[in-house]
Amino acid sequence: MRIPQPLLCFAALLLAAALATPASAASPGEDLETIAVSLRDRALASTHAHDLLRSLTTEAGPRFAGTLGDRAGVAWAERTMQELGFDEVEAEPVTVPRWVRGEAAAAIVAPYPQRLLVTALGGSIGTPAEGITADVVEVPSLVGLDALPDDAVRGRIVFLDQRMERLQSGMGYVLVVPNRLYGAAKAAAKGAVAVVIRSVGTGTHRFPHTGMMQYEEGVPRIPAAALAIPDADLLERQLAAGGPVTLHLFLSARQLAETTSANVVGTLRGRERPEEIVLLGAHLDSWDLGTGAMDDGIGCVSVLEAARLIAELPHRPRRSIRVVLFANEEFGASGAAAYADRHQAELASHVVAAESDFGLGPIWRFATGFGPGTGATADRIAALLAPLGVTHYPDPAYGGTDLAPLRAAGVPVADLTGDGTYYFDYHHTADDTLDKVDPEPLSQNAAAYAVFAWWAAESDVDFGRFVPPPDEQLFAPPPEEPEEH
Amino acid sequence: MRIPQPLLCFAALLLAAALATPASAASPGEDLETIAVSLRDRALASTHAHDLLRSLTTEAGPRFAGTLGDRAGVAWAERTMQELGFDEVEAEPVTVPRWVRGEAAAAIVAPYPQRLLVTALGGSIGTPAEGITADVVEVPSLVGLDALPDDAVRGRIVFLDQRMERLQSGMGYVLVVPNRLYGAAKAAAKGAVAVVIRSVGTGTHRFPHTGMMQYEEGVPRIPAAALAIPDADLLERQLAAGGPVTLHLFLSARQLAETTSANVVGTLRGRERPEEIVLLGAHLDSWDLGTGAMDDGIGCVSVLEAARLIAELPHRPRRSIRVVLFANEEFGASGAAAYADRHQAELASHVVAAESDFGLGPIWRFATGFGPGTGATADRIAALLAPLGVTHYPDPAYGGTDLAPLRAAGVPVADLTGDGTYYFDYHHTADDTLDKVDPEPLSQNAAAYAVFAWWAAESDVDFGRFVPPPDEQLFAPPPEEPEEH
Repeated sequence: MRIPQPLLCFAALLLAAALATPASAASPGEDLETIAVSLRDRALASTHAHDLLRSLTTEAGPRFAGTLGDRAGVAWAERTMQELGFDEVEAEPVTVPRWVRGEAAAAIVAPYPQRLLVTALGGSIGTPAEGITADVVEVPSLVGLDALPDDAVRGRIVFLDQRMERLQSGMGYVLVVPNRLYGAAKAAAKGAVAVVIRSVGTGTHRFPHTGMMQYEEGVPRIPAAALAIPDADLLERQLAAGGPVTLHLFLSARQLAETTSANVVGTLRGRERPEEIVLLGAHLDSWDLGTGAMDDGIGCVSVLEAARLIAELPHRPRRSIRVVLFANEEFGASGAAAYADRHQAELASHVVAAESDFGLGPIWRFATGFGPGTGATADRIAALLAPLGVTHYPDPAYGGTDLAPLRAAGVPVADLTGDGTYYFDYHHTADDTLDKVDPEPLSQNAAAYAVFAWWAAESDVDFGRFVPPPDEQLFAPPPEEPEEH
Repeated sequence: MRIPQPLLCFAALLLAAALATPASAASPGEDLETIAVSLRDRALASTHAHDLLRSLTTEAGPRFAGTLGDRAGVAWAERTMQELGFDEVEAEPVTVPRWVRGEAAAAIVAPYPQRLLVTALGGSIGTPAEGITADVVEVPSLVGLDALPDDAVRGRIVFLDQRMERLQSGMGYVLVVPNRLYGAAKAAAKGAVAVVIRSVGTGTHRFPHTGMMQYEEGVPRIPAAALAIPDADLLERQLAAGGPVTLHLFLSARQLAETTSANVVGTLRGRERPEEIVLLGAHLDSWDLGTGAMDDGIGCVSVLEAARLIAELPHRPRRSIRVVLFANEEFGASGAAAYADRHQAELASHVVAAESDFGLGPIWRFATGFGPGTGATADRIAALLAPLGVTHYPDPAYGGTDLAPLRAAGVPVADLTGDGTYYFDYHHTADDTLDKVDPEPLSQNAAAYAVFAWWAAESDVDFGRFVPPPDEQLFAPPPEEPEEH
């Protein structure tokens, strides 16, 4: 992964952008854009974001909600924010559920016995100690499952076998992830004894992809697991012969009592309007299988590094910049809810927010969910981001899982979307490790957040309040072609 | 992986090669080269080799010596050879050791607790039930270990942390594999309590690479394991801080009683000199972690497909072609020894042999270990292989692990070496699965073996007897540059 071509002629483009940006009547300081450019330059010239990621993955590693690693992550975030020069650092308690993956084993028993690599989906119950052995019924998706008569499902293990498309935007995920979320409930409603899904992911390496699943009130709870993609291929090949295929599944997953984690909140106090907050978010927790280098280590260090660069300026910006590293995004977003709850009285003075929680390459797309009549503001920020290879995307910003309660309360949001082409090769697998993250695009990510946060905090622009468009459908897939590989 | 450029102008080159090959005085039939070309064409036009690989990995899967999967592999090989039209098919019993991998777990206990992905090396003993917990001493290689005073090693876990170079020839393996083979004995001789190695492999996916290790007579046996490459990186990063790093290792590996497997031997009986044998070999067994698609499924189906194409000709070639799918190459090469033993009386009439057991891409190199004065024969075969993108390599052929006893007995050997650039990303890991093998280069592999076997069996050329060069050092690394990635 390399920074896109535009960066090669960086200086020329920056100059052009600066000249093209008209002086605003409301400009709070003549240096606003100049400083934005210098922040961008400093971010790109440094590998400090990657150094932070190295530190996080070395000293904390996997940070699944409620585990010792999660606690190590919180401690790391607190001491790192102190070291980076934040004015205030606080770990705000968050109640989190505590689920234990346990062991997982699966095997085709007939016609051709073979072991399959598998992992529990997050939240799944375990199987009985002797496991579950049953014939498999294969369906291409939840729609296919709906179409089956209950008789074809009852007593069987449902195999949801849908492939995910590799797309820069990651929208392939959105099309397939319902299998993971709702597969168990839908299958159980028809009498299935367990569900296994083709991992929601791209690539062909032999890692099962975990991720959260949900049971439904009033529907029996059945075990749910993900097969590694080559193992889903193998099961598919044995099924292709047309005869019955018998699967054995064992999971020792279980739920423990709730425990406590924390949102780690660091603030650079604004020099003129400290009560007005520009929020940069990411989530500190990760799944347990990998080390959370990518999901969401990249996000954490991008926003930390952006804040560090701003903290090193001679003066704080007018408004406060607050970095929130949310607890437990992966397993119910209880950190997001706790933050919105605790800071309810402040939400009206959250002037704008952005979360970094997607992508493995450079940021390539900028979208806004600002208030009505703020088109010029969006254009101005987009012009500052353009030399980084970021295009201005017309659809409203999503904001990120952890910003959903804020967005619902009217807080304006922006999306700075990373390149997701290879993201889902690693997402929620054991293979999410430091070596997958290149320093160069990470510096570009930090540059984009630094520019955005600086401009938002130093200007006196009013971002308005977010109003969701009527009939909003988050994640409606854009008309995009899959990449050839 | 694609077939190299030369194939794009295949017809023209074939014609040129045919015209450039002088009619030999000893030519046993005017159609010899014409038929070789047609075999090559048929192999390239077909994906049957890949169909065979699909069948092997679907119906047998992992085939570690002495396991049920190994038995399934033998049964698959017997029925497949029958279906492909071999004149004789026999499963010749082979006594094999029986080692069980069991469970493996490793974790850094201090300074920053994290789980590490690990697997036992083949042949390792297990740890005590409570595992082994000790401080780590890191050495870059066996040479570095030798240089350490015993005091620095006694009571510790030795971490052999040597990186492997990515090379088309795979020679990077040869430089690093001594860590795996001899690390435990060398470390134990200095008082170490266990050894962990950086996996002998390339790439960065989080799979530990297994492979055989050896204990030494009179030296204590200590547990030996391989860390996945990202986990070796992590251990290295925690060690880099300079303080003590404590590791916990648990292995439940154990040795069971010997059992029985089989070499599966299929013969196309020669129409004129059936007692003269052209041997094509591969090994049927695999490690237990993956499905042995690549190591050595590719080899098995390449030589099977070559024989199938020849079996479909109107007449058998003059000499016999014998395909031997060897038992247990991976864990002591007892299949190779059993074959040489059982066929001792016949070895003098094994006119030439080649084994397919390396590479994931097209065959790119041809080398010979024929008798003295056979240069013209080597050139003639090389000319037939050239249009496939195969170059004639001057060094003597290695022959392959399973041919070592035959080569030692004077049987001439040839190497048809596959492209190994990406081979060691998957070698001996769980990720050795069907999806890693492209049909196109596999057809090219089959084409090359078909041409070689046909020409050797139909011509009356005398390949002489192999004489090892004085001071032969197999695997001396060629002066080759690593590829950039």
